[in-house]
Amino acid sequence: MSLQNPVFIPGPTNMPESLRRACDMPTIDHRSDLFKDILHPARDGVKRVLKSAVAEVFVFPSTGTGGWETAITNTLTPGDTVLAARNGMFSQKWIDMCQRHGLTVEIIETPWGEGIPTARFEEILTADTAHKIKAVLATHNETATGVRSDIAGVRRAMDAAKHPALLFVDGVSSIGSMPFEFDGWKIDVAVTGSQKGFMLPAGLGIAAFSPKAMAAVETGGLPRTYFDIRDMVKGYAINGYPYTPAVGLLNGLKTASEMLMEEGLDNVFARHTRIATGVRAAVQAWGLQLCAIRPDLYSDTVSAIRTPEGFDAGRIVSHASKRYGVAFGAGLGQVAGKVFRIGHLGSLTDVLMLSGLATAEMAMADLGLDIRLGSGVAAAQEVYRRTAAPVALAAE
Amino acid sequence: MSLQNPVFIPGPTNMPESLRRACDMPTIDHRSDLFKDILHPARDGVKRVLKSAVAEVFVFPSTGTGGWETAITNTLTPGDTVLAARNGMFSQKWIDMCQRHGLTVEIIETPWGEGIPTARFEEILTADTAHKIKAVLATHNETATGVRSDIAGVRRAMDAAKHPALLFVDGVSSIGSMPFEFDGWKIDVAVTGSQKGFMLPAGLGIAAFSPKAMAAVETGGLPRTYFDIRDMVKGYAINGYPYTPAVGLLNGLKTASEMLMEEGLDNVFARHTRIATGVRAAVQAWGLQLCAIRPDLYSDTVSAIRTPEGFDAGRIVSHASKRYGVAFGAGLGQVAGKVFRIGHLGSLTDVLMLSGLATAEMAMADLGLDIRLGSGVAAAQEVYRRTAAPVALAAE
Amino acid sequence: MSLQNPVFIPGPTNMPESLRRACDMPTIDHRSDLFKDILHPARDGVKRVLKSAVAEVFVFPSTGTGGWETAITNTLTPGDTVLAARNGMFSQKWIDMCQRHGLTVEIIETPWGEGIPTARFEEILTADTAHKIKAVLATHNETATGVRSDIAGVRRAMDAAKHPALLFVDGVSSIGSMPFEFDGWKIDVAVTGSQKGFMLPAGLGIAAFSPKAMAAVETGGLPRTYFDIRDMVKGYAINGYPYTPAVGLLNGLKTASEMLMEEGLDNVFARHTRIATGVRAAVQAWGLQLCAIRPDLYSDTVSAIRTPEGFDAGRIVSHASKRYGVAFGAGLGQVAGKVFRIGHLGSLTDVLMLSGLATAEMAMADLGLDIRLGSGVAAAQEVYRRTAAPVALAAE
Amino acid sequence: MSLQNPVFIPGPTNMPESLRRACDMPTIDHRSDLFKDILHPARDGVKRVLKSAVAEVFVFPSTGTGGWETAITNTLTPGDTVLAARNGMFSQKWIDMCQRHGLTVEIIETPWGEGIPTARFEEILTADTAHKIKAVLATHNETATGVRSDIAGVRRAMDAAKHPALLFVDGVSSIGSMPFEFDGWKIDVAVTGSQKGFMLPAGLGIAAFSPKAMAAVETGGLPRTYFDIRDMVKGYAINGYPYTPAVGLLNGLKTASEMLMEEGLDNVFARHTRIATGVRAAVQAWGLQLCAIRPDLYSDTVSAIRTPEGFDAGRIVSHASKRYGVAFGAGLGQVAGKVFRIGHLGSLTDVLMLSGLATAEMAMADLGLDIRLGSGVAAAQEVYRRTAAPVALAAE
Repeated sequence: MSLQNPVFIPGPTNMPESLRRACDMPTIDHRSDLFKDILHPARDGVKRVLKSAVAEVFVFPSTGTGGWETAITNTLTPGDTVLAARNGMFSQKWIDMCQRHGLTVEIIETPWGEGIPTARFEEILTADTAHKIKAVLATHNETATGVRSDIAGVRRAMDAAKHPALLFVDGVSSIGSMPFEFDGWKIDVAVTGSQKGFMLPAGLGIAAFSPKAMAAVETGGLPRTYFDIRDMVKGYAINGYPYTPAVGLLNGLKTASEMLMEEGLDNVFARHTRIATGVRAAVQAWGLQLCAIRPDLYSDTVSAIRTPEGFDAGRIVSHASKRYGVAFGAGLGQVAGKVFRIGHLGSLTDVLMLSGLATAEMAMADLGLDIRLGSGVAAAQEVYRRTAAPVALAAE
Repeated sequence: MSLQNPVFIPGPTNMPESLRRACDMPTIDHRSDLFKDILHPARDGVKRVLKSAVAEVFVFPSTGTGGWETAITNTLTPGDTVLAARNGMFSQKWIDMCQRHGLTVEIIETPWGEGIPTARFEEILTADTAHKIKAVLATHNETATGVRSDIAGVRRAMDAAKHPALLFVDGVSSIGSMPFEFDGWKIDVAVTGSQKGFMLPAGLGIAAFSPKAMAAVETGGLPRTYFDIRDMVKGYAINGYPYTPAVGLLNGLKTASEMLMEEGLDNVFARHTRIATGVRAAVQAWGLQLCAIRPDLYSDTVSAIRTPEGFDAGRIVSHASKRYGVAFGAGLGQVAGKVFRIGHLGSLTDVLMLSGLATAEMAMADLGLDIRLGSGVAAAQEVYRRTAAPVALAAE
Repeated sequence: MSLQNPVFIPGPTNMPESLRRACDMPTIDHRSDLFKDILHPARDGVKRVLKSAVAEVFVFPSTGTGGWETAITNTLTPGDTVLAARNGMFSQKWIDMCQRHGLTVEIIETPWGEGIPTARFEEILTADTAHKIKAVLATHNETATGVRSDIAGVRRAMDAAKHPALLFVDGVSSIGSMPFEFDGWKIDVAVTGSQKGFMLPAGLGIAAFSPKAMAAVETGGLPRTYFDIRDMVKGYAINGYPYTPAVGLLNGLKTASEMLMEEGLDNVFARHTRIATGVRAAVQAWGLQLCAIRPDLYSDTVSAIRTPEGFDAGRIVSHASKRYGVAFGAGLGQVAGKVFRIGHLGSLTDVLMLSGLATAEMAMADLGLDIRLGSGVAAAQEVYRRTAAPVALAAE
Repeated sequence: MSLQNPVFIPGPTNMPESLRRACDMPTIDHRSDLFKDILHPARDGVKRVLKSAVAEVFVFPSTGTGGWETAITNTLTPGDTVLAARNGMFSQKWIDMCQRHGLTVEIIETPWGEGIPTARFEEILTADTAHKIKAVLATHNETATGVRSDIAGVRRAMDAAKHPALLFVDGVSSIGSMPFEFDGWKIDVAVTGSQKGFMLPAGLGIAAFSPKAMAAVETGGLPRTYFDIRDMVKGYAINGYPYTPAVGLLNGLKTASEMLMEEGLDNVFARHTRIATGVRAAVQAWGLQLCAIRPDLYSDTVSAIRTPEGFDAGRIVSHASKRYGVAFGAGLGQVAGKVFRIGHLGSLTDVLMLSGLATAEMAMADLGLDIRLGSGVAAAQEVYRRTAAPVALAAE
């Protein structure tokens, strides 16, 4: 497979060269002053991307999954109940983790392609007058289905129910790419990784804790050492880590945050919407459907595309990889074989997205699907032409 | 302008990461044994790419233009006559260089878009019974017009005329990308640079000398020091250089040659033909004409595309750059404003070429040309689908 | 602080450029075939470095501390007893982790500077006829004190006691730098990280399990998800990971293993011994003592050097950093302020080690210690001259 | 030979990682606006380093030798006379180039180790009432002998003689490392390369022309194309080049100039003096002599060190390379076998310099010279301790 083509998986994303260089540092002494000028700006940068004034940000040599484990093991106690909707592979995995750690999960089965049922959450929370539910788990962007849920709505449900549970949000494939309001949505723990909106290699698990979540750390928790944020708090206080930090990746995180803030978060989000809109126009031109069942659920970071009944969608992924050297995402879990996914987050241009769409067309046509070559590309071109930064033609 | 998009200029090309790394070396002592294991394999690698058993290869920190100056100043004497066709900007520049160095150039004016007129060459050479013409200059691939000339035909003309002139070939935008036979075509000096078929940064001028050309060095030449191959010969004999060599670029040249030979020259040429064929299919779908006036002249490394009468082709280049961050080549000299150029040489995939074609479509449509979006892309997709390495679909 | 000077901390080490490049990969699809050609060779490479035919190697985006947590949470059950000597900061930390996870630790207090008391271990294990002790924890190389313990001796003690406990070895600062025999010493879990003998950035926790340890996974274990090797086993079986892998670091691990095997493990170990011997000669020339109390305990990866009574050794570290831009290691825990540490593992030459020794001399002299400039350097020079690869002087 | 050790050759120097990265750029369109933001700042940066308000700076894909050829071929005419002292290999090479180009060189033979004889120059220039001498050639820093000549003195000699000749200065191994006053010394052409004070890879020849030299271009000159500054002038005026520029190296030149100006030229020069002073203290401690015969001639970028009569100094270079993987410079020309050279320019720290001195000691001792190990190191340590940036010890 050619390493020259961009990838169109829903993370890790294509990486800007500046971020690869930020990560590729020579060895420094992580106990020297050099490190503190990486550590604190990196943490502050994440706070800014989260739009939070209050969050404590913790960064582990790990992944988003480690971020989830950080959330759970630092605040909850075996036997605690948590509430979660199961509407995709990643919400499913988080539920499984809770169960392994001895938590009781009240699971709301939700169609894959649908978002978190906030009204149902409100009913359940309202009914939970004993406040047995200690935390609400919400997957902001289901990477498996390309569905963005309404976290503000989840918060409204909790508020309407006057429920004191903690709100945990999986923002792995949304933070840094789609609007996310840690303070505005009164999130208690937000979790992400380095390899999505931050456009870095995988290797960092990031967890941001609200003051309320920090208080829960004092009173609860499961056995833990590696993900123990009490050790992190002590380490950060003296500009260090409880173990050897991944200095290069932290430097990348610092630099990535700076890049995002320099572009402006609103511009970053608009850029993602623009690229995604082109992809969705192509899907429509192909006569196919998204897995996400309503426009308000459409993710701006990944599109899961349903293929015709009886056709194994995984063949598109395999064929595009083998014949054209281009990586798309396969369907996972319930939608395995039914969807293929185009990742369109992070470092990506309209021009490169068109190469991805053109490749998808070739692969589908090769496999006998009734796709007119150039049709999706043309639909996306129309979107990109209309929305490109205007140039004064006279001045060219 | 985004640095993430590939470039579609006719050189410097997109660079494989492995070659960037080969060039980006730490400092070594160029008088140590480390250097000889770079120098000689680099020179041998060029020989293999030239398909030559006899050439002496000289590499200067310089460019192709320096290679031309090397050819001229090492073999010719003021007052000597050379024969050349003027059918594009680069043949024009070489003619100008000869004139500046006191040579008499017998110029055959040739339409831009046409190749070297070998029959006319044969007439002139046959008529030159006094052998006043000391060298025949031939631009293999006119980068300005996308025209590939018939060097074997030039040689046949010389042989038919039984003329002893040296044959100098500008292979800057052909060597390493299109069939080139140093020995087979009995070339005396071939010239290229690092930034085209070798896919390296600009910075090396490469000149290969036949034994006959080496003999001419003994007897003639203009004042020269920097490009004096006699110093190079002495330097190479003791594994060194007459001045500080560009070690990293030489290491890149060594590695690039290895890459080309590993892929197999025939495969490299076929890959260029395949990508170029897709571009030409797109041009046809757009209803436009190439500058090259006949299929046998079509270059596999660059396509110069004529735009409709009265339209300034340069606007496409400027607009694509400003609005989409994609670089195409502008028209030069006689065809300035009349053509724009798509470079498709070096490190490039079918998939990325489609992004270039899609961008050209958007730019032309934006500027009011009657181009149906997706039309050129579809035509190229058909070519690329048909010619992609076959994959056993059942096995996927 | 200059980034040009090498570091002399006991890890992360100076990194060979080839390993930085191996890590600095463009994004690939970790679900494609490209990944399996990184994953399996990386795991196999670790096995070879461990001299094991039987180990199952697991690699987590994490650190050595995560490797420890992997060892414990996958095999032990709350209430289990483990045996460990406390003779430095890192053995102390491991003991603390066990206690946090609800294990009972039988701690053998041991002077810092001494190794694991194998005779005492044998007594305790022999007395434990009920086999309450489920695991013996052994820190091979105490990075805090520069003490190498006798793991073969620990194994002999266990065998003499006919005790069935698992043997867990912390090889973080020994594996890949000093002789280590996973199979020969019948180790059950060996733990290391990427940033020491493998000369990579921090970010990987590595744990190797014997068949006996794998069997323990079936029957026991603490709550875990991120470090659950059952998920890893399933993932590896289909060439994947249970979450997003740190592809670049894994590629680095593969490459590092190849480098070590190409040099030959015995040569790697001899190189470390040679560099360390020079350092120890310098310490002697300075009239100072190592923290390690006997030559058989001397570590070849780090030397902890006692400074005179009443002098704060930490000042050397701080001063060398601020005034000369060179990083040494400070004393930790019980020996904080009493020792400073010179790391001499991983990618390092005799020549660069001399610059470190010269810097230590300047720093100590600046701070008023009675050190003759050049004295330690001269002692190390004698060692390095005597032991350098011989060169036939006549042939130069 | 290890690539981890620094080099101690008098150029190319060790390169800061930031400059390697500046050079290692992805391909951009050199005809786009991106290029002008590299080209002009690079040229302006050189002007600032030259302390000139008037110089026109020209940069060729070439080397310092190409810079010399640029100076000569753009301003002089065959038959012109130039004045030059021959006091080392590089002045010799420049003289040879002039002769090859048909110039008459009035050569002042000068002992190797001595500087330019300014009094003798004044006599000759005063006697040249016909102004047959068109240019005075002065090698500022003879890299072969480690001798810095007095360019201000040469200018005073010319002024005293009221002679209108052009003043050409070879500043290859001085510019950017030692005080250099293009305007203050009324230099007409200054020449350097990228691989010395600018700490870049070799590959750029740099020539700065005064208005007077620019005027000479109008009226004289030898045949030239590649090095024709008239083409460069035209190219720069439209933000371009007459041929493909070495974009990455130019970006490196821009960045290097910024680095030098940010540090402050006076600080850069003081840093070179400091490192050099340590080297000279070591030479004295070894009981050896510099080739430069008086302190006012001592170069701060390279020290040529005489070895005892009857000892082949080249063996030190060869032995240090083979046995310790460290590169020093060999003697050249008249002083071949009599001196070895330590380069101490560009990116280098006191700490790394000590490793070079320690290596030289080992090599000399190995070869039987009467050198006490550690003696030179200690002498240099004294210098470096005394002159290091002060640190408030109390505050550490």
